[in-house]
Amino acid sequence: MKNKTAVVLLSGGLDSATTAAIARDSGYDLHALTFFYGQRHGIEIECAKKIASSLSVGNHVFINIPAEIFKSALVTGSSIDVPKNRNAVDNDIPATYVPARNIIFLSYALAYGESIGARDIFIGANAVDYSGYPDCRPEFFEAFSSMANIGTRAGVEGSPFSVHTPLLFLKKSEIILKGTALGVDYSLTHSCYDPDGEGMSCGLCDSCLIRMKGFRDAGVPDPTRYRSR
Amino acid sequence: MKNKTAVVLLSGGLDSATTAAIARDSGYDLHALTFFYGQRHGIEIECAKKIASSLSVGNHVFINIPAEIFKSALVTGSSIDVPKNRNAVDNDIPATYVPARNIIFLSYALAYGESIGARDIFIGANAVDYSGYPDCRPEFFEAFSSMANIGTRAGVEGSPFSVHTPLLFLKKSEIILKGTALGVDYSLTHSCYDPDGEGMSCGLCDSCLIRMKGFRDAGVPDPTRYRSR
Repeated sequence: MKNKTAVVLLSGGLDSATTAAIARDSGYDLHALTFFYGQRHGIEIECAKKIASSLSVGNHVFINIPAEIFKSALVTGSSIDVPKNRNAVDNDIPATYVPARNIIFLSYALAYGESIGARDIFIGANAVDYSGYPDCRPEFFEAFSSMANIGTRAGVEGSPFSVHTPLLFLKKSEIILKGTALGVDYSLTHSCYDPDGEGMSCGLCDSCLIRMKGFRDAGVPDPTRYRSR
Repeated sequence: MKNKTAVVLLSGGLDSATTAAIARDSGYDLHALTFFYGQRHGIEIECAKKIASSLSVGNHVFINIPAEIFKSALVTGSSIDVPKNRNAVDNDIPATYVPARNIIFLSYALAYGESIGARDIFIGANAVDYSGYPDCRPEFFEAFSSMANIGTRAGVEGSPFSVHTPLLFLKKSEIILKGTALGVDYSLTHSCYDPDGEGMSCGLCDSCLIRMKGFRDAGVPDPTRYRSR
């Protein structure tokens, strides 16, 4: 039996690695897209390559987005500082919001998916820990899917896209437990928004705080090297 | 009085040049995005630069999309031939359809617009001559705008995006008359899907046929150099 094909967005982070493992476990052959946009955490690209290799990804496409497209604390050279030790679960939109990022990422997944005959797209978005991001909410993914099936040949001709968000309502600890059960090697993944030159995580940004707490709550040893914790 | 700012998608073609002129005439300061994706008509990039200069575009960003993202007759190296002398107004989706192209282009416009504080996006899409493209239909632009205002901070915080499609229901001859009235120099624009090495148009592809007929119907001299006509 021939497997179905899926396009998975692979950032090199914990969530996208788990998402890819879930897609693989569901019987999909994987093709991956990884984006470089001058983000501070360029080390994620190297992580994405290792994760793709560990999951037998067929084709892995790297896409460069000019940094001037985005104004965000996540983009190198931005004058906005990465917030530290903030309350990560409040409802404001964080300074680390990157304008229309998931919209661009998913648009590429549509184009690539339509080109290679894949109609299933997997993205590791999460609406629990990142409730402040407008493009991580279920209503966004519904609107995107609807738009995708109006604006593509595949959608118009009755072979619609599905955008899968298997982590959307999971807590970080639940994501880690799921990935651990599927054999994800989290030492290959990276979460920190502000790593040092050697790739060591800061231990203070939103993403580090959420990651640490996730491993703690899951009762799984955290393989991450933090500068402070 | 300070002008409003708009992001305009500038391909180097006749439609996007006219669209930019309309936006400028409506009082917008313009910033432009031009995409390179290995398309056969790379000469359009040079045209886009000249058009941007003629319209005093503030910042002009060039974006490279890896050719392997798209499978289409328009992309260099594709095994799909550009169709010649077909009936350009039938209702099939043409082989020159590029998967999710306008979705990607508009997604970049959202990100860039949100970054620079622009909420107005202009795209020269046309639903009359290109009725076969799913991403050139009014229902697509409605779905895209709706998605955009759910998935961005600007939309969520009550500063919504507007996607302007001033050419959507115009015939090519009407577009040419409008642009001529606004002083667009159409000798700077390029339409052919299959130009030769010197940038001369084929005179046979859909885009050339529609362009020729447009100038003829408008009663405006066509400044284009065609290999055959």
